[in-house]
Amino acid sequence: MDSFWNEYPEIKEELYRIIRIMKENVRCSQKTIETALLNLIDSGGKLIRPAFVLLSGKFGRYDSEKLCRLGAVIEMIHMATLIHDDIVDDAGLRRGNITIQSKYGKDYAVFMGDFLFARCFNLLSDDICIANIRNVSKVVSRICTGEIEQFSSRYSFNISVKNYLKRIAAKTAALFSLSCYIGGTESGCDETLSKQLAKVGYNIGMAFQIIDDILDYIGDQNTVKKPVGSDLRQGIFTLPLIYALQMDNKELLRIMSEKDYSDDNVLKIIEIVKELNCIGKAKATAKKYTNRAFIHISKLPDNNSKSIFMDIAEKLLKREY
Amino acid sequence: MDSFWNEYPEIKEELYRIIRIMKENVRCSQKTIETALLNLIDSGGKLIRPAFVLLSGKFGRYDSEKLCRLGAVIEMIHMATLIHDDIVDDAGLRRGNITIQSKYGKDYAVFMGDFLFARCFNLLSDDICIANIRNVSKVVSRICTGEIEQFSSRYSFNISVKNYLKRIAAKTAALFSLSCYIGGTESGCDETLSKQLAKVGYNIGMAFQIIDDILDYIGDQNTVKKPVGSDLRQGIFTLPLIYALQMDNKELLRIMSEKDYSDDNVLKIIEIVKELNCIGKAKATAKKYTNRAFIHISKLPDNNSKSIFMDIAEKLLKREY
Repeated sequence: MDSFWNEYPEIKEELYRIIRIMKENVRCSQKTIETALLNLIDSGGKLIRPAFVLLSGKFGRYDSEKLCRLGAVIEMIHMATLIHDDIVDDAGLRRGNITIQSKYGKDYAVFMGDFLFARCFNLLSDDICIANIRNVSKVVSRICTGEIEQFSSRYSFNISVKNYLKRIAAKTAALFSLSCYIGGTESGCDETLSKQLAKVGYNIGMAFQIIDDILDYIGDQNTVKKPVGSDLRQGIFTLPLIYALQMDNKELLRIMSEKDYSDDNVLKIIEIVKELNCIGKAKATAKKYTNRAFIHISKLPDNNSKSIFMDIAEKLLKREY
Repeated sequence: MDSFWNEYPEIKEELYRIIRIMKENVRCSQKTIETALLNLIDSGGKLIRPAFVLLSGKFGRYDSEKLCRLGAVIEMIHMATLIHDDIVDDAGLRRGNITIQSKYGKDYAVFMGDFLFARCFNLLSDDICIANIRNVSKVVSRICTGEIEQFSSRYSFNISVKNYLKRIAAKTAALFSLSCYIGGTESGCDETLSKQLAKVGYNIGMAFQIIDDILDYIGDQNTVKKPVGSDLRQGIFTLPLIYALQMDNKELLRIMSEKDYSDDNVLKIIEIVKELNCIGKAKATAKKYTNRAFIHISKLPDNNSKSIFMDIAEKLLKREY
């Protein structure tokens, strides 16, 4: 497992349990599927979403077994979207490992992702209320609209900050928010508290995605485990570039009007974005969401999870991978 | 709508209602998704699976509104698998219309299929028992294993009849079976009757897929609305060819050992399969499943649906598209 949770052995132990549940739930007589998905589970990831389910559950009647199953569902949904996302991005690497689409082909990857979605809803039906099955399916459809929106706005120079934020809310923050909400409601927290938890998740999720997009500009390839400028090469314009485009920098517009996203041009664009201080501007926006998260966390009832949420929100803002 | 249900105006009227429900449930602020899915719904299809939900519901307390919603869910699942199936097959046409993957690209098609799956589970959570949510998700994962099994056994000369039957049970018959089962249980039929209905669906589904595979050999391109030999060209070996391969025909083995599935060779293979009477043999197998369906139908309590099930089983066996 990723070292992210090393300081929180209690959470880490539960996350190991979640990994076991995920592994049990990808068992299949079709061995190609099983092997591919077991490998994906083993490849790590920070498991932030399932950890948020657990942390939120602590504000109610904490039922470890149930919450671990729900955490597994949320992480499996995330994994399924990653598998399909890698098809769209034609990605070769994910978490430093070769992607399913690259190893087995896009054809396998399509149905492997579907299989994982199906297993999520199967596991979900074990012990969740109907309302939350509806919430999960709503978030899955929002992730899809976010992904399609991102894909259809590729290479578009006039994408606004508002559109960008709407897109990342759908493709990322919605699932963070749901993780907290489900952890709360399914532990018997009332609607007000669960919605408060959802706001914590939403704002941390927004900051998380903005930082992710910043790391595509400034990340160390060995730490981030994917080449710098990956988004740019695919025509996905994220916050740092959107800010830069608003500045009418002639050199930037000239290079971008070439519509040639070769290594050389990508590096030039990244340089200009840095020079225009748009990394700093994007970081400030991420910080704004983290601050909002802090405010929502501070309103939660006092318990151990509260300080962990604070720590994690801070840690995710400052992360380098 | 397809003319398939013209003789059954009562069913046809309900199917129009199902189409309306499907259309309501693909509404989305992301207009590319909405337009693509509305077009797919309008492109027709026989709507056999939702009709089976309705017919089975007649054996219990028939609640038209609820059954139409469930029928819409089943058809939307079917449509989602078609969208993803067309990605794998690289199909240009479906029901005589250009496919989503061909019109919008594979990238869009991946998330459009996911979106549809998500909307299915959303609609499903409106009024179904938890056990049936589990059943639906199990069938979706079975369809995926069937599709992956089919894909991974491409170009394999030693695929057995048993493997073929297992594959089509997963990718096709399971959803037919579920349609009947859900129509029954969700109308208050007891488990014995619902399982009897499931057997009717399963056997009609098996015959349906075998006939589908036969039509790839003998179908009229204008009626079937896809070119003859499509499966063969993709290395998907179905029952007629599997029977032929078992006959050790030297000419067939010679052509196939070339591994060249050009138009010329495909037509030669089809000719040999016909000459060896393997179309007839495959038809006999389809007939065997239809007969089994007849036996199970005859055991159902007497009502109007019973004779319609008999008619439809016969009609699907004799269909030419």
